[in-house]
Amino acid sequence: MLAGCAKPAEAPSFPYSVSSPDGSLTVEVGCTSQGQPCYRLERSGREVVKPSRLGFQLIADEQRSGEDPVIKNAREGLKFTDGSDLCSGFSVLGSSTGSFDETWQPVWGEERDIRNNYNELLVNLVREDGVRMDLRFRVYDDGIGFRYEFPQDNKLRYFKVKEELTEFAMTGDHTAWWISGDYDTQEYNYTRSRLSEIRAISGKTRLDNASATGFSDTGVQTALQLKTDDGLYINIHEAEVVNYPTTNLLLDDKTLTFRTWLTPDAEGVKGRLQAPCVSPWRTVMVVDDARKALASRLILNLNEPCAIEDVSWIHPVKYMGVWWEMITGKTEWSYTYDVPSIQLGVTDYKALKPHGRHGANNGNVRAYIDFAAANGFDALLIEGWNEGWEDWFGCQKDYVFDFVTPYPDFDLPALNQYAHSKGIRLVMHHETSSSTVNYERHMEAAYNLMNQYGYDAVKSGYVGNIIPYGEHHYSQPLINHYLYAIKEAAKHHIMVNAHEAVRPTGLCRTWPNMIGNESAMGTEYRSNINPGHTAILPFTRQQGGPMDYTPGIFEQDMSITAPGQSGKMRHTIANQLGLYVTFYSPLQMAADLPSNYERFPDAFQFIKDVAVDWEKSLYLEAEPGEVIVTARKPKLETLNAAAEGVAKLADGKKDMISNAARFVYALPESAKSLKGARARDVWYVGGVGGPEERTVTFSLNFLDPSLRYEAILYADAPEADYETAPQAYTITRSEVGSSDSFTVRMARGGGFALSLREIR
Amino acid sequence: MLAGCAKPAEAPSFPYSVSSPDGSLTVEVGCTSQGQPCYRLERSGREVVKPSRLGFQLIADEQRSGEDPVIKNAREGLKFTDGSDLCSGFSVLGSSTGSFDETWQPVWGEERDIRNNYNELLVNLVREDGVRMDLRFRVYDDGIGFRYEFPQDNKLRYFKVKEELTEFAMTGDHTAWWISGDYDTQEYNYTRSRLSEIRAISGKTRLDNASATGFSDTGVQTALQLKTDDGLYINIHEAEVVNYPTTNLLLDDKTLTFRTWLTPDAEGVKGRLQAPCVSPWRTVMVVDDARKALASRLILNLNEPCAIEDVSWIHPVKYMGVWWEMITGKTEWSYTYDVPSIQLGVTDYKALKPHGRHGANNGNVRAYIDFAAANGFDALLIEGWNEGWEDWFGCQKDYVFDFVTPYPDFDLPALNQYAHSKGIRLVMHHETSSSTVNYERHMEAAYNLMNQYGYDAVKSGYVGNIIPYGEHHYSQPLINHYLYAIKEAAKHHIMVNAHEAVRPTGLCRTWPNMIGNESAMGTEYRSNINPGHTAILPFTRQQGGPMDYTPGIFEQDMSITAPGQSGKMRHTIANQLGLYVTFYSPLQMAADLPSNYERFPDAFQFIKDVAVDWEKSLYLEAEPGEVIVTARKPKLETLNAAAEGVAKLADGKKDMISNAARFVYALPESAKSLKGARARDVWYVGGVGGPEERTVTFSLNFLDPSLRYEAILYADAPEADYETAPQAYTITRSEVGSSDSFTVRMARGGGFALSLREIR
Repeated sequence: MLAGCAKPAEAPSFPYSVSSPDGSLTVEVGCTSQGQPCYRLERSGREVVKPSRLGFQLIADEQRSGEDPVIKNAREGLKFTDGSDLCSGFSVLGSSTGSFDETWQPVWGEERDIRNNYNELLVNLVREDGVRMDLRFRVYDDGIGFRYEFPQDNKLRYFKVKEELTEFAMTGDHTAWWISGDYDTQEYNYTRSRLSEIRAISGKTRLDNASATGFSDTGVQTALQLKTDDGLYINIHEAEVVNYPTTNLLLDDKTLTFRTWLTPDAEGVKGRLQAPCVSPWRTVMVVDDARKALASRLILNLNEPCAIEDVSWIHPVKYMGVWWEMITGKTEWSYTYDVPSIQLGVTDYKALKPHGRHGANNGNVRAYIDFAAANGFDALLIEGWNEGWEDWFGCQKDYVFDFVTPYPDFDLPALNQYAHSKGIRLVMHHETSSSTVNYERHMEAAYNLMNQYGYDAVKSGYVGNIIPYGEHHYSQPLINHYLYAIKEAAKHHIMVNAHEAVRPTGLCRTWPNMIGNESAMGTEYRSNINPGHTAILPFTRQQGGPMDYTPGIFEQDMSITAPGQSGKMRHTIANQLGLYVTFYSPLQMAADLPSNYERFPDAFQFIKDVAVDWEKSLYLEAEPGEVIVTARKPKLETLNAAAEGVAKLADGKKDMISNAARFVYALPESAKSLKGARARDVWYVGGVGGPEERTVTFSLNFLDPSLRYEAILYADAPEADYETAPQAYTITRSEVGSSDSFTVRMARGGGFALSLREIR
Repeated sequence: MLAGCAKPAEAPSFPYSVSSPDGSLTVEVGCTSQGQPCYRLERSGREVVKPSRLGFQLIADEQRSGEDPVIKNAREGLKFTDGSDLCSGFSVLGSSTGSFDETWQPVWGEERDIRNNYNELLVNLVREDGVRMDLRFRVYDDGIGFRYEFPQDNKLRYFKVKEELTEFAMTGDHTAWWISGDYDTQEYNYTRSRLSEIRAISGKTRLDNASATGFSDTGVQTALQLKTDDGLYINIHEAEVVNYPTTNLLLDDKTLTFRTWLTPDAEGVKGRLQAPCVSPWRTVMVVDDARKALASRLILNLNEPCAIEDVSWIHPVKYMGVWWEMITGKTEWSYTYDVPSIQLGVTDYKALKPHGRHGANNGNVRAYIDFAAANGFDALLIEGWNEGWEDWFGCQKDYVFDFVTPYPDFDLPALNQYAHSKGIRLVMHHETSSSTVNYERHMEAAYNLMNQYGYDAVKSGYVGNIIPYGEHHYSQPLINHYLYAIKEAAKHHIMVNAHEAVRPTGLCRTWPNMIGNESAMGTEYRSNINPGHTAILPFTRQQGGPMDYTPGIFEQDMSITAPGQSGKMRHTIANQLGLYVTFYSPLQMAADLPSNYERFPDAFQFIKDVAVDWEKSLYLEAEPGEVIVTARKPKLETLNAAAEGVAKLADGKKDMISNAARFVYALPESAKSLKGARARDVWYVGGVGGPEERTVTFSLNFLDPSLRYEAILYADAPEADYETAPQAYTITRSEVGSSDSFTVRMARGGGFALSLREIR
């Protein structure tokens, strides 16, 4: 680090401050005597972030002597940055404050109305040489966001970031739920430890992913969940990462100070910026109850409002997939073993001998369509439908897929037609093999194919190392690629669910066609997933947006799902049901095989009944990695619109309405229309536990006190345990009211689900 | 270098050989006792290439432990290369020979018929571990081509090249015409020196280009022209560089041995290959007369036949441009100085104050259209027509242009309409600023815009460092990009002239819509260009395909063309005229300002009269850097088709026929139709000299002995000299026949042009 960025010898002064609307949080901002910007954060008089530095190190542009004859005529004034670091020499040009309070409605989400209420402080900094940098702080009752802003009227024009120097100086050796810092993957189990323990543990926590690039034993990822010994829950994250690399956090474990550690591009540059521009928001959530962390809308609120004018084509999706059978090894994505490698456009698949283990074949897909339709789902994902899966992975093959050519045994037009006749949409699959160059070349044709046949959603994938060579999954060019794919999809009225892409930072507020993301360890990791993993993700990964976790695995034993395979997942069936409520996503999968659901039809009924878009959400109990209990009330118009959409797709066959709508309207399975039906007041409650057995008690005081409800509780049976009895569950029906409460035992790796429907 | 690739201790044996059809050239192939493949080349019993090694160093793939649960189900047999170098342990599995003789017709070219006649030797190599590599040699009378071939039935599947080890061991300290090796630019003056002198000189020869990356003081570029002390002309080059990096040549000046030095990608990999595949051809031309080097079609013959079925839309183009006035600083590409930087789609140009120096404004463009039409040109290039030129260069700005949005003062539809009414097509300009990611995102829309308004040719540019970051102009991903742009253009019936792209390697045979390339130091370098430069390029750069050199600069003094500027070009007007014959290109520009042509209408007449596509070409005198005299006979159907095309474009106004057609048909300026006109026998002769004054004498024995011809000679005046009297020329008319000859003095930096037209 350059001398100018060294730790200041003397304490900074903080002449500027702003507090949250309720006065509990206060940010103070100032400079050291060397002109280094700093801030600190208090909650109710207690320090949460100690004085912490702000700024950047820059990379000086090569100065060319300018003899190139083509360009020496360029006009005067084309100035390059001299690379002076933006971490000292600043003085305050001015400051201003403001307040904001509005309530907005997301296209889909955990609740109908979201309040965005903050006080703001803008501090305008200037350096003697004319370089300007502004600091904007927004202070909410449950946390703060702040960012760097570079106005156009500035000596800086284009500049390259060597490192962003934003610090978060902790007040103690907090407990943290963390995953190891990485430029290419987030697919790790979380570790709970003291900050001081991270260094010793980090190496052991790293799985061997398809693409993984660590950088330090004290590097961890955003969102980072912390807890102080006196019970404050702190979450350090980022919001609205656009045209900027995603950050990790590097811990100085001597001083217990984190600082940003951005993802470098192929030339090692950590951000190429052009003024006017802004950095992503740096966020610090501070609450005194873990339930408030789940209720926080800090990240969404810091993003820009919806950029899509007509959102009528965006809708929640409950889907199944020809997918788990490949994940488990029952069948394969590929079609043939006949040749050692594939050259698209050259290899003639029709001339090759199929290996007979191809999952995405016409017959199998039709059977899935039948099952999904019969059980009231909206859609069916099919992976492995297109040419190229024989050698798609690990070769860093550029032209790996064309996204439009189906295998010989996948009749794309006929299967779509068949699906639509049953009220099911097929979900497209675009595995890019991380060759974004190739994907962008074929994207327009690929989206056009989707439009032609009536696909309205795509699952995209980014497995393996990135092409352009040397780039990372979270470097600035990739951040730009993911958003490019979303925006182009929006032009085609296509919803996107990207896997292995960067963890979301609330961009779904602006681009609600981004209905899902993986970006964390999901069900596909099977036996690798620690019990309690799903009780951490809502605190971390899901702060930035919904996750396509692909829950609903009833058969934990791989040898039963896919004979010849081994491994057992570490959860109970009741745990899987609970996830449909505790994990918010407008895109929810029932991931297991139809044959496994057919074995447990009564438990499967909850997956059929549960909604995926919400009027209101309540967080009844929460502790990271241990327990989450969430209650949600479905949003009616979404259910109605879905019923209308399905009927339209299936040529007016009203008996195709979803089971979720049937549940809310209390329709019999034979009912062919919502006409005349009246919605009942319905709530769903879900709970997930951790590695230890746990009993939770919660009140039903959120119910309408004037009504009575039918309760169906799907719980771990007394003998249930993820290791010894994962499939032991009980289903109990009862009549309840708002004065009642439930006490539910959750097994090790367990959970529960509860539906509550007004009785008329 | 690994031990396995070390120089073999003992002399290899050469059991396999093949000779050229006339028996003059013989290649011998074999292995050392360690199994390293080698070859040597003789001409008429005289060694030309001493025993030289062949092979590759590879990069081992990282072995992953394969724990990733998503991929561990991938089928058995997915094997990675272990990285063993392909330079020893080989034995010969078999060999075969063959002969080939055909005559083919290029879509455009230096002659109607090209003979492709060679003998071939294929040596199949195998290693004990099952790795196969074949060597294919094609031996022509004027040189050889050889390449590596990797069959599909092979232990190798995907492999990464650390270095290609192809050697060219020279027999002596030859004279070379070379430019310094570089991954990003070819825009250098040539240096003539002994091989042993390169190391000491190299550093001084490098200009400060917009993007330049040297790698060694003994690195030089292909095509490399050599001359032995006993008068052999040797040229080392490459042909058909597809999906493979372009090579440089690294000289070991102790042993006088060159070897390939490929351009690395952003991760330092010098080629990512998938069997089955082939390397580019490595070529060694050997002739005993420099004129034969110019007549050689070795590089074109080694490329694949035309891949475009309907070529009716591809045609030669003689054009002018709103370009030189920006190059010289008279006007600018940009529109405004009002803002420090531009953000496309955000910056509102209409709200900005124009600086008044924008070249591509409606009035100026109309004046150029008028001038081009009045003088019988086909087309007009306009640069700086689109938003973004204020800060396009040197910022490594990704979203730098959108290629579809004109500046407020450029009325694209109206200007095209006006041009077409006068029989002129506008030539589109796509400066990519080397952001190929951005270009590919906008390419389809950009080509569609061209189709919509009737552009059928585009000049593309690649100024500055490449995005994707860390890539080079000549690395494999960029090689693939350039061809991608050509292929996509072909789908749109668009001809491409790429500047700053890789030097061509004969691909125009396969993709004849690639009508031009810069890829060497062209006129834009003005006073930097050494006299004699244009007498080297046909030996080097132009072996791979035509160059858009942009000749025809009549006013050498920049202070006259662009008041306030300085610098003088080092050529005479007669030299510039000669270039229209000595430089073959289907795309020829009259690059100077109309006002400069108006001052020399009699000299300008030759540019108007000369054709751009040829029935036959003869090379009358040649020595690299000193002199080239070429005679060419126009291809009639091209002229006729152009006349038809122009008439059609201009709504049947037959008075728009090109001046070249007028000249061949001896039509008066008032003639409105070719109807009834009969073509005369016409030849053009051009000469260019070097830094020294020179007198050439050549016979007209190529003329039809039964005819008489009107000769118009445009020559340097007696006092002409590039420094003291660059604009002194004489024009002499005479009547000549095939038994006559011409003796012409060329000034320092001079040349001449001669038209010969049958007298009836």
